[in-house]
Amino acid sequence: MNATTALLDAIRSGLRVVDLGRTLTVGMPQSPNHPAYWHALPRRHGDMVRADGGSAANDMISMGTHVGTHIDALAHVSQDGLLHGGLDAATALQGGRYVDLGAHTIEPMVRRGVLLDVASALGVECLEPGYEIRVEDLEATIERQGITIGAGDVVLVRSGWGCHFDSDPQLFMGQASGVPGVGEAGAVWLAGHAVHAVGADTIAFERLAPGAGHGLLPAHRVLLVEHGIYIVETMVLDELARDGIHEFCFVLSPLPLFGATGSPVRPLAVVGA
Amino acid sequence: MNATTALLDAIRSGLRVVDLGRTLTVGMPQSPNHPAYWHALPRRHGDMVRADGGSAANDMISMGTHVGTHIDALAHVSQDGLLHGGLDAATALQGGRYVDLGAHTIEPMVRRGVLLDVASALGVECLEPGYEIRVEDLEATIERQGITIGAGDVVLVRSGWGCHFDSDPQLFMGQASGVPGVGEAGAVWLAGHAVHAVGADTIAFERLAPGAGHGLLPAHRVLLVEHGIYIVETMVLDELARDGIHEFCFVLSPLPLFGATGSPVRPLAVVGA
Amino acid sequence: MNATTALLDAIRSGLRVVDLGRTLTVGMPQSPNHPAYWHALPRRHGDMVRADGGSAANDMISMGTHVGTHIDALAHVSQDGLLHGGLDAATALQGGRYVDLGAHTIEPMVRRGVLLDVASALGVECLEPGYEIRVEDLEATIERQGITIGAGDVVLVRSGWGCHFDSDPQLFMGQASGVPGVGEAGAVWLAGHAVHAVGADTIAFERLAPGAGHGLLPAHRVLLVEHGIYIVETMVLDELARDGIHEFCFVLSPLPLFGATGSPVRPLAVVGA
Amino acid sequence: MNATTALLDAIRSGLRVVDLGRTLTVGMPQSPNHPAYWHALPRRHGDMVRADGGSAANDMISMGTHVGTHIDALAHVSQDGLLHGGLDAATALQGGRYVDLGAHTIEPMVRRGVLLDVASALGVECLEPGYEIRVEDLEATIERQGITIGAGDVVLVRSGWGCHFDSDPQLFMGQASGVPGVGEAGAVWLAGHAVHAVGADTIAFERLAPGAGHGLLPAHRVLLVEHGIYIVETMVLDELARDGIHEFCFVLSPLPLFGATGSPVRPLAVVGA
Repeated sequence: MNATTALLDAIRSGLRVVDLGRTLTVGMPQSPNHPAYWHALPRRHGDMVRADGGSAANDMISMGTHVGTHIDALAHVSQDGLLHGGLDAATALQGGRYVDLGAHTIEPMVRRGVLLDVASALGVECLEPGYEIRVEDLEATIERQGITIGAGDVVLVRSGWGCHFDSDPQLFMGQASGVPGVGEAGAVWLAGHAVHAVGADTIAFERLAPGAGHGLLPAHRVLLVEHGIYIVETMVLDELARDGIHEFCFVLSPLPLFGATGSPVRPLAVVGA
Repeated sequence: MNATTALLDAIRSGLRVVDLGRTLTVGMPQSPNHPAYWHALPRRHGDMVRADGGSAANDMISMGTHVGTHIDALAHVSQDGLLHGGLDAATALQGGRYVDLGAHTIEPMVRRGVLLDVASALGVECLEPGYEIRVEDLEATIERQGITIGAGDVVLVRSGWGCHFDSDPQLFMGQASGVPGVGEAGAVWLAGHAVHAVGADTIAFERLAPGAGHGLLPAHRVLLVEHGIYIVETMVLDELARDGIHEFCFVLSPLPLFGATGSPVRPLAVVGA
Repeated sequence: MNATTALLDAIRSGLRVVDLGRTLTVGMPQSPNHPAYWHALPRRHGDMVRADGGSAANDMISMGTHVGTHIDALAHVSQDGLLHGGLDAATALQGGRYVDLGAHTIEPMVRRGVLLDVASALGVECLEPGYEIRVEDLEATIERQGITIGAGDVVLVRSGWGCHFDSDPQLFMGQASGVPGVGEAGAVWLAGHAVHAVGADTIAFERLAPGAGHGLLPAHRVLLVEHGIYIVETMVLDELARDGIHEFCFVLSPLPLFGATGSPVRPLAVVGA
Repeated sequence: MNATTALLDAIRSGLRVVDLGRTLTVGMPQSPNHPAYWHALPRRHGDMVRADGGSAANDMISMGTHVGTHIDALAHVSQDGLLHGGLDAATALQGGRYVDLGAHTIEPMVRRGVLLDVASALGVECLEPGYEIRVEDLEATIERQGITIGAGDVVLVRSGWGCHFDSDPQLFMGQASGVPGVGEAGAVWLAGHAVHAVGADTIAFERLAPGAGHGLLPAHRVLLVEHGIYIVETMVLDELARDGIHEFCFVLSPLPLFGATGSPVRPLAVVGA
C-alpha cells in the first residue's frame, strides 16, 4: 500500500486533529518586544450593501510575527554577527529583508511529533516559575512515557505553564517571576537527538530566570544558531497531556512571510480518532 | 493497524508535501478592498547586541486577512443581513468582532483533497479572462481524470490563471479583463457534492466578468451563505497539475484570528514521496 | 495695520514656539484600549541605492489615534446612543467611518490659549493621584494668575502629572493609583466659560479614581457630548509653567483623518521671543 | 507692543486659517513605495456601552509617513551614504531609528510663507505633465506677484497639479505621464534664497519625467542633503491661488515621530480675516 493510499485510508477511518495553537485575541499576553496583535473590521455587514442584498465584511490586522503561537525562523537570532551555518547576518539581509533563512524558507512540516510531558513526569500540574528543566528530567520523562526520540522528529516540551495564559497573563509572561523551561544543557540534549524542531507551552521556549526578561537566551543560540533547529512557542499542550497522546503526526505550515524572522502558526497533532 | 500508526508509517516511508500557498511579499497582487500586506523589521541584527554577542531581529506586519493565499470564514459574506444558517449578521457581532462564524471557528482541515484541473481538461494552459467554468467543464474534468468527489472533500478548481500572479499582477487581479472561474451554476454543483471547502488559483475563486470587479459574487453567496462551504483563494495549483496529482491529503490550518472574517493560510497537499 | 501684517511683523520681531506635544516613541505610556504606537523602517539607507548614489529611507507606522499627545474628535464619545448635538451615533457612521463629527471635521485652531497652572496655584509640584480639581481650585488659579478666560479660548489645565510620563509610565497611566484632573463639576465650569477646547498633561484629561480605569468619564460627556468642546490629552505643559507663560497664541492642526475619532497632534504655544 | 500682544490682537481682530492639508482617506493616491494609509474602527458606538449609557469609539491606523500631505525629515534622503551635514547615514541610525535628523528633530514652524503661483504666472490652470519649472519661470512668478523671498521663509510652488488628486489619482501620481515641478536648477535657486522649507501641490515636490517614477530625485538631493531644507508634498494650494494670497504666516507642526523619516502634516496659512 503506498503512502498516499495510507493517508487517504487514515482520513476515511477517522482522524482526530488536536489543535496546538492559541486563539489570537487583542490584549492576549505576548512579549512587549514585538508589535502587539491588533485587529479591527474596516467593514462590517451593513456598511456597504450591494444592490442584490449581498455584503462582505473584512479585517485589518497589525502585529509582530512572534505573537500568539509562533515559530522562530533561523534568521531570528544571531551570535557574534552570524546566523546558522556561519552566514553573515548582514549578508542574509537584502533590500531590508532576510532573504536567507527568513520565514519563507521554513518548509512545511509533516513529521513525527513527540510530547515530553515533563510536568506529569515530575508529578506536578505545572513546573515552578524559573525552574530549569534538567537533562535528567527529560530522560526521566522519556523513560516514564516509554518513548524514543528519532532524528527529524519534532519534540514538544510541556511544563504545564500554559495554564497561566488566560488566568494570569502577567505570570504567563513571567517578567518578574521567571518561566520554567529547558536551559542550555537541555537544548544541547535536544540537539543531540537531531530533532527538526522543538516547541513548548511557554512564551520563550527556554527557561527565563526571575527578573531577567529575555536578556539571555542560551537555548535559542544552541538551537537556532548552532544547530538550525526551529523553535515553536506559546503552544497549547494540555489536551495532548490529558489524553496521554505522546506520539503523533505533527503538522505545521508557517505563513511564507518573505524575509521575516518568524510567523504565527497553528500547529496540529494528528492521530487516529 | 490503527490510523496513528498508519500516519507514522507513511511519514517514515517518505512523504511529499506540495506547498499550495503563495509567498507573502510587499507589493504582491491583492484586492484593493483589503489592507495591503506590509512588512518591516523594527530590529535587525546589530541594532541591539547583548553583552554575550547575541542579537534578535523581529518584524512588524500590517495586512488584511484576505491577502495572499487565504480562506474566507463564514462571517465574511452575508445576504439580506443574514450569515450562514440564517444567523443575523448583527447578532454574530459582539464587541466589534464576529464571535459567531469568525475565522477562529474554522476547524483545521485534514481531509481528502481533489484537484479539478479544468485548464488541462479543456486543453489549455490557462482559461480565458472572464471565462465561466460551466458544469459540463467540471464534469468533463472529472471524467478525464477518472476521479470522484466525496462528501467532506476539499475540491480545488484549477484555471491556470495563477501563472499571471508574478508575471502580470494587473491581469491576475483582472479588474479590467475579468478572471475565469465557476459561476453560480458551478457553485451549486460543488455544493451538491457536499464538499467541505473549495479553492482556486484565482483572486476571488469565482468568475469575475470583465470590468465588473467584485461587485457581484453569486458563488460566494451559494457557498458561504447558503451551504457553509469555505472558500480558499489565490492558491498555487500548478505543481499538482504538472505532476498529475489529483487526489491527496489536504491540510489547512488557518490562524485562529478571533472574530475575523478570514485568514491567510498555507495549505498543503500531502502524498507519498 | 491689518492682521496679516501684524503676524508677519511678529514673526520678524522673533517668536518663541513652545512645543506642547510628546515625542512618539515605541513603548511610551498610552491607554491599553487603543492600538499601541509602533514604528519600523522598511527601508534604511543602503538597502537600495540608486545608480547615482542616492538612497531614501522610509517608515511604517501602526497606532491608535488616541496615542501620544492627541485630540478627541466629537465622534469619540456618545451618551445613550447620541453624539454632540443629539446626532444619532449610528447615523453619523457611514461606510464604517464617522462621516459626521469625525477628526476630519475639527477645524485647525489658531486661538487664544490660557494655562491654568493648578499645581503651582496649590503650591505643589504635582497633584496627588486621583485628586479631583475642584471649581474653587480653578478659580483660585485664575485669581492667582490674574487672568480671564474668554469665549472661544483654549484652556489647558496643568496638574504637574506629566512629570511621571518618562520616569514612571505605570504611574502616569494611573490604572491602580488614579490620576488627578477635573471632574464633572470642573468640566461644567469650563463649559460655562464657552471655551473652544481644553487640554491637560494627563492621559484622560479628567480625574481618574484609583483602580477605576477609564470606566466612568463624566467630564468627557459634559465636554464632548453636551457642549462640543474638544479635549486634548497627554500634553507637555511644564515649560509654560516654568516660565510663567499663562496666555499665548495656541495652535493645533489635527491630521484630517477621515471618519476617525481623534488624531495625534503636536500643539504649540506661540509668544514673543 | 510686544509680539505676544500682537498675536493676541490679531486673533481678536479675526484670522483666516487656510488649510493646506489633504484629508487622509483610505484609497487616496500615494506613492506605492510607502505603506498605504489604512483606517478602521476597532470599536464603534454601541459595541461596548457602559452601565451609565456612555460609549467610546476608537481607531486603528496603519500607514507610511510619506502619505497624504507630509514633510520629509532630513534623514529621508542620503547621497553616497551621507545625510545632510556630511553625517554618516549608518551612524545616524541607532537601535533601528534615525536618532539624528529624524522627524522628531523637525522644529515646528511659524514662519513667513510665500506662494509662488507658477501656474497662474504662466497663464495655465495646470502645468503640463513632466514640465520642468525653470528658474526663469520662478523669477517671472516673483516679478508678476511683486514679492520677495527672504531667508528663513517657507516657499510653496504651485503647479496646479493638485486638481488631479481627486479626479484622476493615477494621473496625480504620474507614473506614466510624469509630474510638473522644479528640477535641479530650480532647487539650487530656492536654496540660494536660504529658505527654511519648500512645498508643492504634487506627490514628490520635484518634476518627475514621464515613465521614470521616483528613480532620480535631484531636487531632493539639493534640498535635503546639500542644504538641509525641508520638503512638504501633496499640499492643497488652490485656495491660496484663487484668493491671491501670496504672503502669509505659515504654520507646520509635524508629529514628533521618534527616528522616522517624515511625518504626515496639516500645514496652515494664516492671514487676516
